[in-house]
Amino acid sequence: MPVYEATATAPVNIACIKYWGKRDTSLILPTNSSLSVTLDQDHLRSTTTSRADASFEKGDRLWLNGTEESIKEGGRLAVCIKELRGWRREMEEKDGGLPKLSSWPLRIASYNNFPTAAGLASSASGLAALVASLSQLYELPQTPSELSRIARQGSGSACRSLFGGFVAWREGKLADGSDSLAEEVAPRDHWPEMHALICVVSDAKKGTSSTSGMQRTVETSPLLQHRLKVVPDRMDKISKAILEKDFDTFAQITMADSNQFHAVCLDTSPPIFYLNDVSRSLIALIEELNRAAMLTTGHLVAAYTFDAGPNCVIYALEPTMRLIISTVNRFFPQEGHFPDPFGLFEGQSMEETALLNGFNGGVIRTGGWEKGAVKSLIHTRVGDGPRRLGKEESLLKADGTPKTLA
Amino acid sequence: MPVYEATATAPVNIACIKYWGKRDTSLILPTNSSLSVTLDQDHLRSTTTSRADASFEKGDRLWLNGTEESIKEGGRLAVCIKELRGWRREMEEKDGGLPKLSSWPLRIASYNNFPTAAGLASSASGLAALVASLSQLYELPQTPSELSRIARQGSGSACRSLFGGFVAWREGKLADGSDSLAEEVAPRDHWPEMHALICVVSDAKKGTSSTSGMQRTVETSPLLQHRLKVVPDRMDKISKAILEKDFDTFAQITMADSNQFHAVCLDTSPPIFYLNDVSRSLIALIEELNRAAMLTTGHLVAAYTFDAGPNCVIYALEPTMRLIISTVNRFFPQEGHFPDPFGLFEGQSMEETALLNGFNGGVIRTGGWEKGAVKSLIHTRVGDGPRRLGKEESLLKADGTPKTLA
Repeated sequence: MPVYEATATAPVNIACIKYWGKRDTSLILPTNSSLSVTLDQDHLRSTTTSRADASFEKGDRLWLNGTEESIKEGGRLAVCIKELRGWRREMEEKDGGLPKLSSWPLRIASYNNFPTAAGLASSASGLAALVASLSQLYELPQTPSELSRIARQGSGSACRSLFGGFVAWREGKLADGSDSLAEEVAPRDHWPEMHALICVVSDAKKGTSSTSGMQRTVETSPLLQHRLKVVPDRMDKISKAILEKDFDTFAQITMADSNQFHAVCLDTSPPIFYLNDVSRSLIALIEELNRAAMLTTGHLVAAYTFDAGPNCVIYALEPTMRLIISTVNRFFPQEGHFPDPFGLFEGQSMEETALLNGFNGGVIRTGGWEKGAVKSLIHTRVGDGPRRLGKEESLLKADGTPKTLA
Repeated sequence: MPVYEATATAPVNIACIKYWGKRDTSLILPTNSSLSVTLDQDHLRSTTTSRADASFEKGDRLWLNGTEESIKEGGRLAVCIKELRGWRREMEEKDGGLPKLSSWPLRIASYNNFPTAAGLASSASGLAALVASLSQLYELPQTPSELSRIARQGSGSACRSLFGGFVAWREGKLADGSDSLAEEVAPRDHWPEMHALICVVSDAKKGTSSTSGMQRTVETSPLLQHRLKVVPDRMDKISKAILEKDFDTFAQITMADSNQFHAVCLDTSPPIFYLNDVSRSLIALIEELNRAAMLTTGHLVAAYTFDAGPNCVIYALEPTMRLIISTVNRFFPQEGHFPDPFGLFEGQSMEETALLNGFNGGVIRTGGWEKGAVKSLIHTRVGDGPRRLGKEESLLKADGTPKTLA
């Protein structure tokens, strides 16, 4: 008897134009379009194995990082599974020769290769990997954009993780959400020089969850209504900048939109804060790098962006990443060793790398930061969309329970 | 020969509806109206002595806290002096019997009774005291609102320090700024229970000056344009709340407007940050106090507001100030002794004061803050407008140079 199983990986994405606010909370329809860069799964990924088997005990089961999560009736996971199973059922009804996978219980195991403590949103990559693995298991003919409508209902920004490269989530106009889906703006190969540095920042206090935070903003922020009028033009301009590989415009819009997102958080009642003093100081460092670079080259070198937490993601082109990393490291020394996946500092001390001409370190906190204010640095780049893995990568044992991962 | 001299004091004011942005930078005409509470000169004040004497060497001279400041031709101080001297000249031209004070050199000494290091805006009280003392010296018949047009040109928010109580600065419509002036919304005696607590917060880095910061916001923040549409309704509602002594509405609008002001700062490019982690934590404390109070009494107990710096000003009614101070002190212990000008803790330890029922200290940074994160607390209340002092309070010696103050 064959094993009906599929294992997929899906990437993390970090938005340049931020999603913040739903116009429909159950369908997860956003108040504005958003745009993100998909990060490389070689470094950060969620992996999910889905298996359907008639012999499984009734009911679907799911494990996340080895711990079982309940699939609540009507909850977001259940909705995604139900929709994909429905598409499979339609196929089986048209073609009687297909095995009846849609009627069999599912066993699903998912694993993130990055620690939850890193504060990276794992729900986007996790939901995208779930949708990718189920669509592979069910051999669904739907396009990534059609699948993105399902992922969206699991976790809004997950829809953007169904594509590689540069991805737009169109807000859509229809009440049923059928036109609220993700599309590729440009593939990774269009601009492979786009690199990213994630600065993992400690925070003493857990912030407001993005789900409850964005609803509070929709309900109480007078400025959000104006932001919604600002976003369409930014979407057009940053898409054009990506197509033209115009880093200056890309960086300007990315930074302005991150700041505007945090501005509407602050305009919320009670106010929501995600940036802390270390985040502010990282912004000051990048603004100063850009100021000094503009003076000598007439171009920007980096763009910061912050999601619903204090971590800073810095976009920069490959040739300047060495400067960015050594400058961040000088003012925010980490406790551990920088893994240097691209071999930028081979045989050289990071500390000996020169600062940019004219860079004024005085903009950073006097005396710099203590070790560990930035916990770690993750260097990655623009990546591809969900991948299909071989059987040997399965996360499930023969009995349908998750393998123990080292 | 008589001495022509006047000594005046003027108060600090702290805005509830914030002034941020000029539509005319030389006349200092604001992009929106603002509203403030004048604080009690018994605690915080600027004192200024102005003397005119035909025998003084040619040219006006001014000392601030004992140090001479140059009066730059065409600068803000010079403009204020010139306008007031012009009004005096008109009087002298109409009445030949008046001494020709307008043609005599001036000697001016000004002194703030609060340290500049406290981070309180001293330019508002300082300019207001200058205008008050000169108008007294020159025996000008102009009303405080007319004088406020002069003070406005010295330092925008100084115009509000020409009144006690609750004060509106009307943005005005005219290009020459003649209708951009301050008015009393209600005198201090209307609502004398309005108290204020200034939490002086240390900051590692000097922030952006408000003059350059607000211009950057006008030039780069898309959200500021929308804020300008929000303010008129807030002005109406908070004025009504003051007239009706409706603390809940007063507090809601005050907090929302402080947050919105800092939101447009963050929406500026490069972004401007005035709030630091201690400021954020003080906001969390007040929001939690209000949450707990709403549950038991249905009313708010306090309103925070922040100007262009990390200091927190908390407005609360007299009966609740004891609770506010003891709660702030518990989570933000100061190094020095709290002066307690209203005798709230006489014979009792501040530390033994109970927390509000249901107050969750977990919203503050885990373990509370180290001593000195809040440097000191200044307890004051709504106060009166500029005062005229007697000759014995003069800041000038017989030769027109400043006295040395202890």
